[in-house]
Amino acid sequence: AEVKKIAVVAGDGIGPEVVAEAIKVMRKTEELFGLQFEFEHGLFGGIAIDERGTPLPQDTLEMCQRSDAVLLGAVGGPKWDSNPKELRPETGLLGIRKALGLFSNIRPANVFDCLKDASTLKPEVLEGTDLIVVRELTGGIYFGEKYRREGAHGEEAVDTCVYNVTEVERIVRQAFEIAQKRSKRLASVDKANVLETSRLWREVVIRIAPEYPDVELEHVLVDNCAMQLLRRPSSFDVIVTENMFGDILSDEAAMLTGSIGMLSSASLGEGSFGLYEPVHGSAPDIAGQGIANPIATILSVALMYRLTFGYEEAATAIETAVKNVLDAGHRTGDIAVDKSKALGTTAMGDLIVAAI
Amino acid sequence: AEVKKIAVVAGDGIGPEVVAEAIKVMRKTEELFGLQFEFEHGLFGGIAIDERGTPLPQDTLEMCQRSDAVLLGAVGGPKWDSNPKELRPETGLLGIRKALGLFSNIRPANVFDCLKDASTLKPEVLEGTDLIVVRELTGGIYFGEKYRREGAHGEEAVDTCVYNVTEVERIVRQAFEIAQKRSKRLASVDKANVLETSRLWREVVIRIAPEYPDVELEHVLVDNCAMQLLRRPSSFDVIVTENMFGDILSDEAAMLTGSIGMLSSASLGEGSFGLYEPVHGSAPDIAGQGIANPIATILSVALMYRLTFGYEEAATAIETAVKNVLDAGHRTGDIAVDKSKALGTTAMGDLIVAAI
Ligand SMILES: CC(C)[C@H](C(=O)O)[C@@H](O)C(=O)O
Ligand SMILES: CC(C)[C@H](C(=O)O)[C@@H](O)C(=O)O
Repeated sequence: AEVKKIAVVAGDGIGPEVVAEAIKVMRKTEELFGLQFEFEHGLFGGIAIDERGTPLPQDTLEMCQRSDAVLLGAVGGPKWDSNPKELRPETGLLGIRKALGLFSNIRPANVFDCLKDASTLKPEVLEGTDLIVVRELTGGIYFGEKYRREGAHGEEAVDTCVYNVTEVERIVRQAFEIAQKRSKRLASVDKANVLETSRLWREVVIRIAPEYPDVELEHVLVDNCAMQLLRRPSSFDVIVTENMFGDILSDEAAMLTGSIGMLSSASLGEGSFGLYEPVHGSAPDIAGQGIANPIATILSVALMYRLTFGYEEAATAIETAVKNVLDAGHRTGDIAVDKSKALGTTAMGDLIVAAI
Repeated sequence: AEVKKIAVVAGDGIGPEVVAEAIKVMRKTEELFGLQFEFEHGLFGGIAIDERGTPLPQDTLEMCQRSDAVLLGAVGGPKWDSNPKELRPETGLLGIRKALGLFSNIRPANVFDCLKDASTLKPEVLEGTDLIVVRELTGGIYFGEKYRREGAHGEEAVDTCVYNVTEVERIVRQAFEIAQKRSKRLASVDKANVLETSRLWREVVIRIAPEYPDVELEHVLVDNCAMQLLRRPSSFDVIVTENMFGDILSDEAAMLTGSIGMLSSASLGEGSFGLYEPVHGSAPDIAGQGIANPIATILSVALMYRLTFGYEEAATAIETAVKNVLDAGHRTGDIAVDKSKALGTTAMGDLIVAAI
């Protein structure tokens, strides 16, 4: 196959450790499936702040721009938490999303058999839960104008939430298309009884819906959605929503599966380009100890194969390998019942590589 | 005691039915505790739209303004759902909050013994959950400027989120004071890594905190809070947050208790004036059938006695009566295991009145 360029931004904390295992997996699939990857590494997040004085150095961004896909580890940590805005890892994250035009964040929330009991929800409620939150990622209150001003009652802060028709259309279409390939149910989440941006959002959804007649559509208010996710998680298939609501609901959905250490995510733009990363954070408390769970990052590679490259067979092979390793009882510390038998990061990576 | 003026806005759906039981309870406490109430009724919500062409008629607002407390049933229903904004029940709700200066919404989320199993959370996770969400209610993106405009990429919608120092201070102080009377733990929820209003919010919290040295304070990002509510609900005591986040988190917290049909709420301003209402909605599907559960509204009366009037003894008497009636096995349909034995609204109200 054609050589694909992968930009690797391992980031902070356990990022480099889990990314190393994901790359091992990719190398193994090169042999087995005749794929070819060229990896380039760049500084990003806290480490970029330390070494280059900015969370998103220009050369890292350019490296990503000339790549076919980006593999991201994790960013952040207490070290940079009280930095001013420009010197915070999150600013790099927001910057890379905007600069690469990654307007869509795909967040699958499904339950791993071996982690059913890790959820705080009752197993019978969780049964069959397998949903995807499609979150708009480059608009809304995240990127609108922000400022301070003097008001009649002292200092004021202002955030602006803006959405235009085009922005809503492209994310909603993508969600409809994803739903068409799954169980054909779409929940569009907004706060149309209060927000003007939500009313625009809902208008667009209603206008576009007839083009996807096979998809069953419901409009859910965000407060109600936060409740329904708890009450009937398995009834959702695809949820599409704006940036801020998506931030909250995708994390709620991830947590209720009990499998947060295992969940992967994709951030997509126009075309096939995408950025792939585990949902979990940089876990600074266990960084460098070789005990982090690499599975979410490895599964992000499967997502990359499927969504960016169309390597369906290799994607399934990775997912099956992960499943088999777990079914055989192998666990890293975070998901082990008997912690004394827990595997390290590399050992888990090796087992998955061997199982492919 | 002095005669207290109660403005009653029963609203739509089951509102009138549940409010009638709450008034019966108040009448009973008049005799027993030497209290005196004068009730005045006003149109509000959908019924006001139908009869007066506006969800919040001027005379209803004036009635509330000359009262000592407001008792609200519920508003809304499918009948008005596709009305234009000015003719929607929610617009009345937002209007009454603003006009009465009700900047603080107090939302207790606790578990009722008899409803432990109704939660979708595992009982051992829920054990001991008893928290209050203090939600800012008259600021933020709910009340900022909203408009449409033509942008470079077609029509745009804009919502503005504004907070000034005074608005943040008063709600945060109130939350600290509530925490002082409880388990002395306060979680302030924001999105300070993204929003300017959240950064202002956090600055104010940090500046004020030293005045409440006995309260243990944590800052929690809103996405993380949505997760932690699921993972460790019992670890929260008081949660304080801005309007939009509070809308989502208070509903998530209510749902996870499994007791949503039983939860009461208070909306407070400066001074002792307050508006009290059940958390549940107008349930149009069961309206007029005499089967609605009046307990949340009756418990809202207890909250009114405590927070507005300082009638601590009568408040406790109501709460104890509810508990005793439930402990004796009496249930309305929504909380009954054996639906065939379910009591109607009036029968439940009568039992509670008798138990006081
Ligand atoms: C770190 C933060 C800016 C970011 C966000 O809010 O988008 C994170 O929570 C996420 O969901 O990727
Ligand atoms: C009906 C709606 C405007 C309202 C809100 O969002 O405040 C409701 O959800 C609530 O929480 O009281």
